[in-house]
Amino acid sequence: MTSQRPTSVDIVEVGPRDGLQNDSHLLSTDAKVEMIRRLAEAGLRRIEAASFVNPKRVPQMADAEAVLARVVDLPGVSVSGLVLNARGFERALAAKLREISFVAVATDTMATRNQGTTALGLVETWSDLAVRAKDAGLFRSVTIAVAFGCPFEGEVALDRVIDIARAVAESGVDEISLADTIGVATPRMVEERFAALARAVPGVPMRAHFHNTRNTGYANADAALRSGVTVLDASLGGLGGCPFAPGATGNIATEDLVSMLERDRVASGISLEALRDATCWLEGEMGRRLPGHAAHVTPWPAVLAA
Amino acid sequence: MTSQRPTSVDIVEVGPRDGLQNDSHLLSTDAKVEMIRRLAEAGLRRIEAASFVNPKRVPQMADAEAVLARVVDLPGVSVSGLVLNARGFERALAAKLREISFVAVATDTMATRNQGTTALGLVETWSDLAVRAKDAGLFRSVTIAVAFGCPFEGEVALDRVIDIARAVAESGVDEISLADTIGVATPRMVEERFAALARAVPGVPMRAHFHNTRNTGYANADAALRSGVTVLDASLGGLGGCPFAPGATGNIATEDLVSMLERDRVASGISLEALRDATCWLEGEMGRRLPGHAAHVTPWPAVLAA
Repeated sequence: MTSQRPTSVDIVEVGPRDGLQNDSHLLSTDAKVEMIRRLAEAGLRRIEAASFVNPKRVPQMADAEAVLARVVDLPGVSVSGLVLNARGFERALAAKLREISFVAVATDTMATRNQGTTALGLVETWSDLAVRAKDAGLFRSVTIAVAFGCPFEGEVALDRVIDIARAVAESGVDEISLADTIGVATPRMVEERFAALARAVPGVPMRAHFHNTRNTGYANADAALRSGVTVLDASLGGLGGCPFAPGATGNIATEDLVSMLERDRVASGISLEALRDATCWLEGEMGRRLPGHAAHVTPWPAVLAA
Repeated sequence: MTSQRPTSVDIVEVGPRDGLQNDSHLLSTDAKVEMIRRLAEAGLRRIEAASFVNPKRVPQMADAEAVLARVVDLPGVSVSGLVLNARGFERALAAKLREISFVAVATDTMATRNQGTTALGLVETWSDLAVRAKDAGLFRSVTIAVAFGCPFEGEVALDRVIDIARAVAESGVDEISLADTIGVATPRMVEERFAALARAVPGVPMRAHFHNTRNTGYANADAALRSGVTVLDASLGGLGGCPFAPGATGNIATEDLVSMLERDRVASGISLEALRDATCWLEGEMGRRLPGHAAHVTPWPAVLAA
């Protein structure tokens, strides 16, 4: 017996945000714009292009507005920004985004360390922003960070994640994402948590965010698809991490995810060939090889040797 | 709804064979023996320690008999060797192995290039060896190579794999493995092929062999476990490849597999800590970092930051 998977999936490219914000290599504004344009040309329809954080704390995102101004009108693409608080929400509005990703956090220690408030405090922030975002006509995605484990508190109880999801849904939301911020999720755990999420907030589209820190990222992506998730995050080349989460490494690579899904008959509308080219270009910009594999092996199906 | 997985799995360590035979770095006989001893101490109960190939063609395996003589009696461990033909079978007998892995091949081109005969020719070789191995009291595992794709012929029809499996089972076998020799399998494909194998040869234990070439190896391992496979191959550090299969890269890493399975409540009887130590030791011997992740990240569960 084989598992049920959707016939298609939406991939959200998070490389320009999650990828670059954790990298010691500062990409120029021009290069960021070029990266986003290449991703759009490859077929990405949702691109998380910036994070509205304090530029003194995260210099990689200091040019957020400059980048967004040049890509927000890319045809057919929803460009989004990561919003952590009311200040970030104002910046998203000013940048004329049509989609925001708000970050809730499953543990108090992580919330306090990164955002100076508790997990519940962030839920309260969202209850205010949810209304304002709806009034502004924005698509509202909320990510629950450290939903599979926390670098400060260790294991995170599923009940805690579900309580936050319920509160977020009550305030209003168009999509809820569970994020494995530090790469400790495994496939059975992914099945269990998304099954519980689907029961807790029926009808709310589910999204998943995985890091390949312990080599389980692609297994988790497949588990998510088998569990009702219809939106997956990935980053070009597998760039990524989290400056506030010790031990986090790269996201799953967009090109490796597309390569796996294509062969498993899950359509993404994205060109693997264009992604491979974009990754090679990005590696030139970053000055190093990135963790993804697909850009460096012969595409399949293909006869590799005569 | 969550998937069914077994409560425990047997892992066959193939690093000393599949890992080393493809590596340009020649490990000394002493280091190979040390590697195998460390694996046994970590809890591995099945170790593929050598391949009976032509030493002129594969110098990495030239000391097969010398290695085997020093590890064949490790208590509680079944040390096996890869057998490609009658000559290899004789060498396995002479080395006093109690377990052999014979290699069948799903495509004629791969069989001809590597073993100078057709896929059917190898099945016929097995029909002879199966009886002799049974008479000698050996555990008989047969691997069907390139079962998910061939570097020479491209896609491999499932019917072809199943026909070979049926013929192998008719000759007698204690376990059949499907090998993704070049790392092109994906989870849905793994589910489909093992479901078909289970129907074709009911009652024959199923084993799986994956390479992480395109970052699908761990997703495939999880898919195999959800499809009735009870034995998984892996190599310490993710060493590996195939000298005769262009484009093949490392096996899935034993420590990363154990790390994933532990968290998903699938017991392997293997110590992750001992594997991490062994990988770090092996990296010193090989003079480079290996592809596995688990030896280089903080073990989980653990609070990573104060």
